[in-house]
Amino acid sequence: NRGMATERSETTRLEAFSDGVFAIAITLLVLDIKVPPAPDGVPTADALPLGVALRHLWPSYLGFLMSFAVIGIMWANHHNVFRLVQRSNPVFVGLNTLLLLCVSFLPFPTAVLAEYLRVPGERTTAALVYGGTLTVTAVAFNALWLYASRWGALLRADVDAEKVRTITRRFAPGAPLYLTATLLALWSVTASLAMHGALAMLYLLPERRGGSGL
Amino acid sequence: NRGMATERSETTRLEAFSDGVFAIAITLLVLDIKVPPAPDGVPTADALPLGVALRHLWPSYLGFLMSFAVIGIMWANHHNVFRLVQRSNPVFVGLNTLLLLCVSFLPFPTAVLAEYLRVPGERTTAALVYGGTLTVTAVAFNALWLYASRWGALLRADVDAEKVRTITRRFAPGAPLYLTATLLALWSVTASLAMHGALAMLYLLPERRGGSGL
Amino acid sequence: NRGMATERSETTRLEAFSDGVFAIAITLLVLDIKVPPAPDGVPTADALPLGVALRHLWPSYLGFLMSFAVIGIMWANHHNVFRLVQRSNPVFVGLNTLLLLCVSFLPFPTAVLAEYLRVPGERTTAALVYGGTLTVTAVAFNALWLYASRWGALLRADVDAEKVRTITRRFAPGAPLYLTATLLALWSVTASLAMHGALAMLYLLPERRGGSGL
Amino acid sequence: NRGMATERSETTRLEAFSDGVFAIAITLLVLDIKVPPAPDGVPTADALPLGVALRHLWPSYLGFLMSFAVIGIMWANHHNVFRLVQRSNPVFVGLNTLLLLCVSFLPFPTAVLAEYLRVPGERTTAALVYGGTLTVTAVAFNALWLYASRWGALLRADVDAEKVRTITRRFAPGAPLYLTATLLALWSVTASLAMHGALAMLYLLPERRGGSGL
Repeated sequence: NRGMATERSETTRLEAFSDGVFAIAITLLVLDIKVPPAPDGVPTADALPLGVALRHLWPSYLGFLMSFAVIGIMWANHHNVFRLVQRSNPVFVGLNTLLLLCVSFLPFPTAVLAEYLRVPGERTTAALVYGGTLTVTAVAFNALWLYASRWGALLRADVDAEKVRTITRRFAPGAPLYLTATLLALWSVTASLAMHGALAMLYLLPERRGGSGL
Repeated sequence: NRGMATERSETTRLEAFSDGVFAIAITLLVLDIKVPPAPDGVPTADALPLGVALRHLWPSYLGFLMSFAVIGIMWANHHNVFRLVQRSNPVFVGLNTLLLLCVSFLPFPTAVLAEYLRVPGERTTAALVYGGTLTVTAVAFNALWLYASRWGALLRADVDAEKVRTITRRFAPGAPLYLTATLLALWSVTASLAMHGALAMLYLLPERRGGSGL
Repeated sequence: NRGMATERSETTRLEAFSDGVFAIAITLLVLDIKVPPAPDGVPTADALPLGVALRHLWPSYLGFLMSFAVIGIMWANHHNVFRLVQRSNPVFVGLNTLLLLCVSFLPFPTAVLAEYLRVPGERTTAALVYGGTLTVTAVAFNALWLYASRWGALLRADVDAEKVRTITRRFAPGAPLYLTATLLALWSVTASLAMHGALAMLYLLPERRGGSGL
Repeated sequence: NRGMATERSETTRLEAFSDGVFAIAITLLVLDIKVPPAPDGVPTADALPLGVALRHLWPSYLGFLMSFAVIGIMWANHHNVFRLVQRSNPVFVGLNTLLLLCVSFLPFPTAVLAEYLRVPGERTTAALVYGGTLTVTAVAFNALWLYASRWGALLRADVDAEKVRTITRRFAPGAPLYLTATLLALWSVTASLAMHGALAMLYLLPERRGGSGL
């Protein structure tokens, strides 16, 4: 009846707004890959050839790929959560806004990582900033899920309790795993990024094998 | 019947378009946080370490957070207003466009604030420009609501008169409060920004405590 | 039945995609208002005070306002046309794509106008480029409408022939009026921009007075 | 019933998210057309007149037009595929994400092409990078279609087998044709771009003549 229809349209618009932020953040990532400036007039001897200059941009491509995968995974999980959510309330909207804050902030640490990954004394800092953002994002996502499924009891009545537990078990390791990958940077930036990449790979696999969790 | 369905779809598309502008404006904010440029080749002695350079960007983070909160609150309130609106007309579309103009302009004063917050002689000007934009936005939002609820009588017939009065009472103080916060900058920029932040906090709280007004 | 539902969903998605382009183009306009760079370290004597520097940006504000109005009007008219359209076909999609090409290109001439409006020898060129883009956009819009209403016969069967003629009469003067405003720049840039502004004002007025045409 | 409705809403949201990425990527292209900077204060003798400077930007306009056409065609084809798709699964979502990755990356090679098209020693590299991205995009699109129509069997039950074969025949030549156009750059960059343009023209024609394939 009217009440239910209103509630449904409420999460529908919240979901549409969130989708917009996800789609824009994922598409803005490309703006951080800077085209090497062409030489003015005649090419000078000390300018890098374009092929070499483009290869030197590999940290930008890597950051683009990793953040694209992370936002894509977050979007898919966000979608999966909202399919189970029946109602909304101000706390849920607030937690969702917090998650969108993290997602829309992500292009910045991605650009920091791309800019400093080849600077010997600074790459650890850059990797910590990048991984730290991913960890906070994972925490925000888990808070959203736990509020919807437990504290706020916003799920549809027909959602199976076992299914809820499965999802919780799948999402829960996200934050500690991202934190581990982040702290790995203190020892080796390469190992840290490899673990971030492995986490993305794991979550990109179909559900039966590795879960589509955060 | 047809008439009502057409009207409904009219505000639906207006709402969807507005949502797009809100989502894009909120996500573009991150573009104003500029990555400190990495040193070319070997790091020079006078370049700031990345950790220090990132901390020096705090005005950018502050502006990002405040404007993100403001646009998020505006979106939620816009959504709440449109849930009550039955019909549209050219004046309503015009007022909505005025509000979207303010929202899509906001990244500019945010960037001005971030750039000049640490420049002693200019931070007052920057805070006045930023707060002035928020004040005008609050005025535009109130005009939209007052037109929809009173002058244009565009609300659904089943909306309770008491509920309308409650919302009007909640939105009305927005403009004078933002103006007060703005003028505070003449005395202290810190106090002005603190009041802007407090207003955002207040409106982010659930409805029962502080209202979700502008 | 199925056929009609499919057709409807076809224009629905075309409309949603177009709305996205309109919303993004209108929100990207703000990126062309460049923040005056803050002085490094201690302020130098020859740097402009922020207040003066911000006032010097008036061509950027003017371009922002005018292009915002133009895209807003285009969106509203696009919406009005699509409400009458029943079916789509490849030519209609092509003409719509041409219109979106013009709309998404508009931030560039807007930025050219803002950059060169105060350069004595170049402001005429800048105004011609800006007005020329608006004129081509008006032509594209009229082509879309004429194809939908006449050549392609894509309108809903229940749309009144008199209403179609009224809309055609309203849209038709758009292209010659924009062309006139553009060519005025050869005599006076100020007069040209004033006429562009007056056209926007005219079309922003409610339908009964000046029509919501292009 | 519920199951089908859920599936439908799943591809609906996937389609809406994809539309967002297409719309944003197509609208971001304009950001790569850089306004020639105006001279400070009095115009200097060696600065190019605006008219000449704008004509020198032709590689940017060309890149804008070509990438706009490519993304527009991709969007239309994506839409045509999704109209036939009944169900989704993680592999389909993954392939769709891969396609969106290509589309959202496209502004970068477009900017590289625009920047280096007039640099004698580098234009071949730039054209190879640009054409290579289009080729990979065509492969990703074909993979999405072949998975949906064959390997994953995700199409609606009422889709005609003959229609599926027609679409497959239409999409299949996309990748080899784009690869041919790309490799042409080794011999002549102009010929390569002309073939890319001809492919876009061909696919922009209505279905009966050239097919709306990739």
